[in-house]
Amino acid sequence: MVASMLNTPATILPASFTHRHLLGIDDLSRSDALHILDRAEYYIQKNREPDKKHAILKGRTLINLFFENSTRTRTSFELAGKRLGADVINMSVATSSTKKGETLIDTAMTLNAMHPDFIAVRHPESGAVHLLARKVNCSVINAGDGCHEHPTQALLDALTILQYKEKVAGLQVAICGDILHSRVARSNIKLLNLLGAHVRIIAPPTLMPACPESFGVEVFTNMRKGLKDCDIIMMLRLQTERMEGNFIPSFREFFHFYGLDEEKLSFAKPDALIMHPGPINRGVEIDSKLADDINRSIILQQVEMGVAVRQAVLEILANNE
Amino acid sequence: MVASMLNTPATILPASFTHRHLLGIDDLSRSDALHILDRAEYYIQKNREPDKKHAILKGRTLINLFFENSTRTRTSFELAGKRLGADVINMSVATSSTKKGETLIDTAMTLNAMHPDFIAVRHPESGAVHLLARKVNCSVINAGDGCHEHPTQALLDALTILQYKEKVAGLQVAICGDILHSRVARSNIKLLNLLGAHVRIIAPPTLMPACPESFGVEVFTNMRKGLKDCDIIMMLRLQTERMEGNFIPSFREFFHFYGLDEEKLSFAKPDALIMHPGPINRGVEIDSKLADDINRSIILQQVEMGVAVRQAVLEILANNE
Amino acid sequence: MVASMLNTPATILPASFTHRHLLGIDDLSRSDALHILDRAEYYIQKNREPDKKHAILKGRTLINLFFENSTRTRTSFELAGKRLGADVINMSVATSSTKKGETLIDTAMTLNAMHPDFIAVRHPESGAVHLLARKVNCSVINAGDGCHEHPTQALLDALTILQYKEKVAGLQVAICGDILHSRVARSNIKLLNLLGAHVRIIAPPTLMPACPESFGVEVFTNMRKGLKDCDIIMMLRLQTERMEGNFIPSFREFFHFYGLDEEKLSFAKPDALIMHPGPINRGVEIDSKLADDINRSIILQQVEMGVAVRQAVLEILANNE
Repeated sequence: MVASMLNTPATILPASFTHRHLLGIDDLSRSDALHILDRAEYYIQKNREPDKKHAILKGRTLINLFFENSTRTRTSFELAGKRLGADVINMSVATSSTKKGETLIDTAMTLNAMHPDFIAVRHPESGAVHLLARKVNCSVINAGDGCHEHPTQALLDALTILQYKEKVAGLQVAICGDILHSRVARSNIKLLNLLGAHVRIIAPPTLMPACPESFGVEVFTNMRKGLKDCDIIMMLRLQTERMEGNFIPSFREFFHFYGLDEEKLSFAKPDALIMHPGPINRGVEIDSKLADDINRSIILQQVEMGVAVRQAVLEILANNE
Repeated sequence: MVASMLNTPATILPASFTHRHLLGIDDLSRSDALHILDRAEYYIQKNREPDKKHAILKGRTLINLFFENSTRTRTSFELAGKRLGADVINMSVATSSTKKGETLIDTAMTLNAMHPDFIAVRHPESGAVHLLARKVNCSVINAGDGCHEHPTQALLDALTILQYKEKVAGLQVAICGDILHSRVARSNIKLLNLLGAHVRIIAPPTLMPACPESFGVEVFTNMRKGLKDCDIIMMLRLQTERMEGNFIPSFREFFHFYGLDEEKLSFAKPDALIMHPGPINRGVEIDSKLADDINRSIILQQVEMGVAVRQAVLEILANNE
Repeated sequence: MVASMLNTPATILPASFTHRHLLGIDDLSRSDALHILDRAEYYIQKNREPDKKHAILKGRTLINLFFENSTRTRTSFELAGKRLGADVINMSVATSSTKKGETLIDTAMTLNAMHPDFIAVRHPESGAVHLLARKVNCSVINAGDGCHEHPTQALLDALTILQYKEKVAGLQVAICGDILHSRVARSNIKLLNLLGAHVRIIAPPTLMPACPESFGVEVFTNMRKGLKDCDIIMMLRLQTERMEGNFIPSFREFFHFYGLDEEKLSFAKPDALIMHPGPINRGVEIDSKLADDINRSIILQQVEMGVAVRQAVLEILANNE
């Protein structure tokens, strides 16, 4: 029970969740987030059994509308939908072709006319998912929009932390690397703050957003200082595809200063755990051996939690239609 | 009831439909078409409910075999099949590689050996779908072949007209734009004539087929004259990918003479409705504001009708095996 | 009954099959192979009925992880999984991008964390599938790895032979063409030997592996001599994509010496049957008319048997978890 892990009795969890969409952590209250995490716990167990199938979304339609490639996230949503009994349609759309704004809205309105119940959208432009949500009748789930939000990633990260630390409140969590271009960082900062963690961000000045303190975090450019006594280290992926210009001198130099290795890890708590949203650039963000160290790295557990969290989100949004 | 809309008592609808395939409107009798439209009405309602699932095609297999890209049509067939309980397999085949005729037949025979019940085929060459249908044991549905036919599009267009005008017979329908390259126009002319509409075609001389009068339509090169007192205006997509050479001086000039705007629309009846098979080239075939005018444009309703019509076609062909 | 065809009473078939994976024919005993073939017979009939659906894999997940394109094999596995009630996820991964070994293992571990029950893997490198199988908890099925093995192809070939010749033991089987690069040849040689056939291989010296006699086959470079009194002729596809350098002078010269035509076929037994794993290069490996001769060619029956064999493999591995 997540509720008990957070010292919150289950009975105060909300009977209902009043949002039609999941566009960002920004829209969620603490009890909304706990409600999703609590329900996801059920699916963790269920997914470990041979029969992983439910009928609760039978007859519903989920469309995975991906304007950016992401086999991992698309597969996670596809499995979540299918295991709940929904019909799942995958659509990959290249955005390069024409005027993007028009394509997005025309595509969304066309799909909407086919009466899906959910659209999970990934789009390279921040805010595109909100625009789309205003145009359609179904529930929209933000599967990552530009440098803005990736709420199911933050929820699966919180669920993973809860599995290992049995709480989020009070933990020291360091988020390290390319903060500037990371929707994962933005969503995680919001959710971790909502759940009572102490969040630090660590980045070189070129990959630090403007006014980082406004996020309600401690800010470090020195990784060793930033990792001091941390419980959780969230490494980010270098979003080279979203970088215009030169943000780092070289991968080698980036690893030297901001890559996680045994030596830098030694500054964190002895039981500190390592997370990464994947896919990993081995030897750039993280030492390859550390990434595979089953005593420290919980990267694969994040993937497992991803399916469960997305099942919980689909179920809760469906109840709310 | 479509039957009553057409002043035809339901009892004269055929108890059975004797075709194994749906290759073109050419093969259909008036009562065949009414039978499909009548059945599609049922699915319109069903698709608006949370549980859109049926079991009538449980255990059947639909293969979507697309030699041309079309996310919209493929998704519509995929949803139609899945909502009826069928297993749906998507196959996109690039035709550029080798000798096309061989590839088509070898691909069809290979798929046929896997015992599908339906193959929905889109192919860039006119007649390719008929060739394929002669080689396989299952039902073949033409999802568009070259400049030839696109029967489910014509059926969904008729269904959309029936939803708004409650009849087809007697209506003045103008089909405008790139008639020469349009399988949508060919299938629509046939079906609208079959159902008793008065059809006009409007195109510049370069985009008009030879002997257009032989289609049983009125022919116009002046759009204002062609739209005079129309009930329905079907704009076509400029099929630039099927144009070899220069058919129009420029998009700008095309829009000036043949693009639908408020001024040209004023020649049609005050309650005339605007249709387009999509995707729209905004500002080329149609003024962007008009395309979005919910009092005049029924473009998104066409998309909705598309799923229902394809469900009806699959169901009727399955009953007929 | 396959068992009786092989003069083996059904009662000695194994009650269980003790392998978690199907990585190659190398791992199978004769009774393992017979068990799969016997079970596949059931699915042949079932796939010819309108309702081809079973529930035995309901709630299970099959991931088709293809690092090489193969619409045919992927579709066959997809149909096999869906017809048994499993949820099926398709993943196509381009290997060209980065360091292949890492990508493979990271991809496999990521998928494994989502709790699939089966992964069917095709990979361009020999041995990649074995590496992957050591890292995951689910059942792995080799859908073709480099020049190494393609066990379900050999099983479907044996099933096809059984359908027409009612036995495998004692038959003269000639495998002809690009033996060097063929995983189909390797798996077939092993399985045919296991089932008691006499196997010959026929290839030009440049497409013959080193020490061919070590495979337990008769070796020919003259096709007419190799085909003499054969019961079965298995033609191979020229794996031009796996050839580095010049292995054949020209397609024309290859066909002259090693392409199957009426004249060369006349050296085989009068009732010899022609097989090919597809897709065929017509006029290169085989005369186009012969490929379509329904009295001699059982190429399409191989495709049909493919779905049944893969259903049997999935069912047997599932019972074995």
